[in-house]
Amino acid sequence: MKAFQKKDYPLAEIRRYLEPGPIVLVSSAWKGKFNIMTMGWHMMMEFSPALFGCYIWDKNHSFEMIRKSKECVINIPTIELINEAVGIGNCSGDKVDKFKKFGLTPVVGDKVSAPLIKECYANFECRLAEGKLISKYGLFIWEVVKAHVATSPKYPVTFHYRGEGVFMISGRSVSLRKKFKPRNL
Amino acid sequence: MKAFQKKDYPLAEIRRYLEPGPIVLVSSAWKGKFNIMTMGWHMMMEFSPALFGCYIWDKNHSFEMIRKSKECVINIPTIELINEAVGIGNCSGDKVDKFKKFGLTPVVGDKVSAPLIKECYANFECRLAEGKLISKYGLFIWEVVKAHVATSPKYPVTFHYRGEGVFMISGRSVSLRKKFKPRNL
Repeated sequence: MKAFQKKDYPLAEIRRYLEPGPIVLVSSAWKGKFNIMTMGWHMMMEFSPALFGCYIWDKNHSFEMIRKSKECVINIPTIELINEAVGIGNCSGDKVDKFKKFGLTPVVGDKVSAPLIKECYANFECRLAEGKLISKYGLFIWEVVKAHVATSPKYPVTFHYRGEGVFMISGRSVSLRKKFKPRNL
Repeated sequence: MKAFQKKDYPLAEIRRYLEPGPIVLVSSAWKGKFNIMTMGWHMMMEFSPALFGCYIWDKNHSFEMIRKSKECVINIPTIELINEAVGIGNCSGDKVDKFKKFGLTPVVGDKVSAPLIKECYANFECRLAEGKLISKYGLFIWEVVKAHVATSPKYPVTFHYRGEGVFMISGRSVSLRKKFKPRNL
């Protein structure tokens, strides 16, 4: 599988990879066990501190691991991992070691105990910033405390979920930079 | 400009259009005035009721209109409207009538006072479901109470923001339906 070379990335700029809305893999650790879940319900919430919100269903095995550890890593897979992402979303960490089952490599994080997924294009280490709406809405608000992003390609080919088993694959990029006011860039 | 034929759409299925993460146009009404803003920070939060979360910067002219009216319409533009979306994001409703300036048509909603944007592929009428985190995080949680979606094309070509004036245009769709457990579809 492709190995990305990664570098530390400015936290205030991670929106470049999250705002387009790709499917992400959420990795977690609790009591010596790792897990991974596939997630499409997330959004940026602030540049600095780098806040990121996501919805996690309380029936997911990851839910309690993430709620209790108050940490996770948001990993961005590219198209090469689409089958793994679907597989991860269709089995439970209660029964299998998903790193082993899907041939993924856990890498030790710098700031959190949850593992990074080596084979992903980007890894964002997160600490819980706000948990008030977890019980009622399944809403976790994270502060991204460390970002690791591949040095190339500039624009990763990501996949985005349309429901019903159908994914949209990210297409070409266009710059409309000249039409922006500088302060809006 | 292309005119879409639309039909009422099941609320529990609107994720098909929102989960991929497109730029949306948010229309609002307050004290006899309409406004539109361009938005990329949003996510699905529940199928039924159809909950949808978004971040709105409190410096946007739309912020107070939306906070006070407790309503908005989330409109999904297709690639034909990319210049309008950038223009809308780079001027203020404080100074201009954006419907007039960008040649867009306000349509009366069924359930809310905020106008639908006729030229968009889909329009989701929203009522505020939870406002507790507006002040601290700019987070609005909406219940979508009525959905209008174009009858074709099946997969609209949407645009997704990468920051720095660059957009990703949605690409091809692939079905991995056979790899899903039926209950996960």
